[in-house]
Amino acid sequence: MTTPTDYVKANEQAFIAELMDFIRIPSVSTTPHHAEDMLKAANWLKDHCLRIGMTRAEVFETDLHPIVYAEWLGAGENKPTVLVYGHYDVQPADPIDKWTMVKDPFEPEIHDDKLYARGATDDKGQLFIHLKVFEAYMKTTGSFPVNLKLLFEGEEELASASLFAFIDNHLDLLACDVAVISDTGMPSPDMPIMVYGLRGLLYTELEVTGPRKDLHSGIYGGTVHNPAQAIAEIVATMHDADGHITVDGFYDNVRDLSDEEREDFRRMAILFDEEWREQVDAPQMWGEPEFNSAERVGARPTLEINGIYGGFVERDGQKTVIPSWALAKISCRLVSDQDPDRIFDLLKAHIKKVTPPTINWELRMLSKARPVVIDIDSPAIRVAGDAYEKIFGKQPVFAREGGSIPVVLSFKEQLNVPVVMLGFGLPDDNLHAPDEKFSLEMFRKGLQTVAVFYDELSKSQG
Amino acid sequence: MTTPTDYVKANEQAFIAELMDFIRIPSVSTTPHHAEDMLKAANWLKDHCLRIGMTRAEVFETDLHPIVYAEWLGAGENKPTVLVYGHYDVQPADPIDKWTMVKDPFEPEIHDDKLYARGATDDKGQLFIHLKVFEAYMKTTGSFPVNLKLLFEGEEELASASLFAFIDNHLDLLACDVAVISDTGMPSPDMPIMVYGLRGLLYTELEVTGPRKDLHSGIYGGTVHNPAQAIAEIVATMHDADGHITVDGFYDNVRDLSDEEREDFRRMAILFDEEWREQVDAPQMWGEPEFNSAERVGARPTLEINGIYGGFVERDGQKTVIPSWALAKISCRLVSDQDPDRIFDLLKAHIKKVTPPTINWELRMLSKARPVVIDIDSPAIRVAGDAYEKIFGKQPVFAREGGSIPVVLSFKEQLNVPVVMLGFGLPDDNLHAPDEKFSLEMFRKGLQTVAVFYDELSKSQG
Repeated sequence: MTTPTDYVKANEQAFIAELMDFIRIPSVSTTPHHAEDMLKAANWLKDHCLRIGMTRAEVFETDLHPIVYAEWLGAGENKPTVLVYGHYDVQPADPIDKWTMVKDPFEPEIHDDKLYARGATDDKGQLFIHLKVFEAYMKTTGSFPVNLKLLFEGEEELASASLFAFIDNHLDLLACDVAVISDTGMPSPDMPIMVYGLRGLLYTELEVTGPRKDLHSGIYGGTVHNPAQAIAEIVATMHDADGHITVDGFYDNVRDLSDEEREDFRRMAILFDEEWREQVDAPQMWGEPEFNSAERVGARPTLEINGIYGGFVERDGQKTVIPSWALAKISCRLVSDQDPDRIFDLLKAHIKKVTPPTINWELRMLSKARPVVIDIDSPAIRVAGDAYEKIFGKQPVFAREGGSIPVVLSFKEQLNVPVVMLGFGLPDDNLHAPDEKFSLEMFRKGLQTVAVFYDELSKSQG
Repeated sequence: MTTPTDYVKANEQAFIAELMDFIRIPSVSTTPHHAEDMLKAANWLKDHCLRIGMTRAEVFETDLHPIVYAEWLGAGENKPTVLVYGHYDVQPADPIDKWTMVKDPFEPEIHDDKLYARGATDDKGQLFIHLKVFEAYMKTTGSFPVNLKLLFEGEEELASASLFAFIDNHLDLLACDVAVISDTGMPSPDMPIMVYGLRGLLYTELEVTGPRKDLHSGIYGGTVHNPAQAIAEIVATMHDADGHITVDGFYDNVRDLSDEEREDFRRMAILFDEEWREQVDAPQMWGEPEFNSAERVGARPTLEINGIYGGFVERDGQKTVIPSWALAKISCRLVSDQDPDRIFDLLKAHIKKVTPPTINWELRMLSKARPVVIDIDSPAIRVAGDAYEKIFGKQPVFAREGGSIPVVLSFKEQLNVPVVMLGFGLPDDNLHAPDEKFSLEMFRKGLQTVAVFYDELSKSQG
């Protein structure tokens, strides 16, 4: 009988074909018209879990998008139980006309050993690694080194509201010794990192309203505080010229960095700056001058204008309108110990302070997630670090990532287990952007790393 | 034989039905995909002119949208020749879902003696008055009091570039004693006004670009000057808290108002403020405190943000993106003696001054029109004033309007004739906005006023 490693090598093409089927389901969670696709993706996962040998697989309905739970507990009570989390929802594909590597963001194509499609790396490709490693063990040894529970949600891109309720109501079902998430990345294939911190997120929508209808600028211009102008004036007060956020109290609960942490960030920044020049290529870097780029992304909070809209915007077109309303999407990445509810209140107080009585405004919270820092002294994290080192040839650097995975905090606090982030993304994966891709080299190395991780974990905690 | 007045009364329903046919052609000039409709509208006008008795009617091709010219010169050399100008192009109908009085902005409906549709008042309904008065005379007397030339363009909403070239090349064809335009309004049916000034217009598009692609805010947030934020920061520097425009040199060539003009504006402002509360209903009035509302609209320049866009803006949706670009539509209403080219340069210098090197920007001029003030001491303007008084019961107030009709300056300077603005719009006509309408009462009074005007002009200059 072949080994799991042999099985993985022999079946790589079949794995990729299956992953492409999964990716073809346009499971976009953030807009309402993909509800059926969400259900389809959940059922696809459930069916796949049963097919590879999980003994139980179920789709749970929620208030919004379904949750998939599956388990195989055949390793026995003496072996650890691992809960693997992933999300089958993806970001919207727009602007669709900016994709250059595929005709359709949901019709994957392979170019230069990279798989291009929405969801390729975030998170369909990454969660798929665990399914294939399980399959490889089952097909070759008839067993798996640890007890495995799988939890896949469809609202990660929406801050996981349904999942939190589900965890609250299913603490026994989800009970485990360690939680594993493959939804992060590393600065380069030469530099594995062990993510131990994730930023939180506050996502808001600001609406400004003035005249009760759109107006002709020739007839009313000069007598109306134009909402498109007013929203710009409000948004423009939120940063100073150095990129500091000017909302009173915003930085109050931001923890200082230790010298050790700053040293790690210093090493990260060298690679980050190089990669920034290649991927971003804006005229100049921007942001708080007291912190280096890796610190600004990993350990400092941000306030971003994810969108702004008002009036007539058709390119090259003209309309002399004063719009009656304008909208901005404003989100904050938060770090320990910032609380999203408090930041929301501070943001409202700021807008109230800077906005004149000539217009009306409303700030709505769309979602929130608290920041999290993981204790790095757990055996599972050491095992993960060793697995990275064995496959990538280097001991990983401990790092905090700029993104947010809302459920990490929940696993830490509700399930009371260490959370291991075994991620295989790369900086040029174009997450949330056109031409999202997953390096197939990283897919292969991910399969090997994850296999080693389960094997070693089984021994260390057996 | 009946009189022209009787004919108009007897045929009102037929006139409205014809006007509705004209309005049903969606002749939107400002976006490229209505080119065929533009040609259709021009041909409709040409055919209609021939049907009502014009002896010549022709569609002239231009670089963009066609121009219609028609004439009837049967009054003879001893009678004045009047050139009537109108435009058959209309503004875009969006936001279409904000129209409440019609299902389709190009399918007119009559409610409460008002005709609702895009173009009802601006300018299809108003130019149609001249056609119907001509028809009434021809059908009842076989003749018309003056020689009539008609000039209809399709680029008024785009600042009339093709028309200027056409006038330059057809000075003999267009030679006349007076030009007449029905494309303005009055504060209320009780207060006819004689418009003698129109603001100019500079329409620009500002594009801000930063990263070479859309980015994930978790991965790059804090290191990139976000274009959606940057465009807001630029736009926010253009006014001070009192509504003054802060672009250096912007007010340099703005003429001071005479005491007499300010007295006229004072009377206008009382009505304007009342109508503002009804039509605009924003929380508070806004603008330069040293000037009253009518002055701010009629005699002061403005700078408006007609549109702003960047990133993800789907209502209630979330996307944690840093967009790679953002766009704003910025237009200025100009007054004498501001020059649009100079203002464009000042605007560029301002943006250069306030924009940091962390992003790139470009300001493009989309169109321009110089402001104009008409000499009010011409006999034709006196005749027009008398016609208003006869039908509306009051001598009109001399007024400057906030809108822009680019061709007025051209008639004044290239044809060297007085320009009479015989307008019948009302402030609640929703120009350039959803639920545009034309009051049928104003249509009827317009027909009477225009008939009296031609009749009296024939006598005064015969």
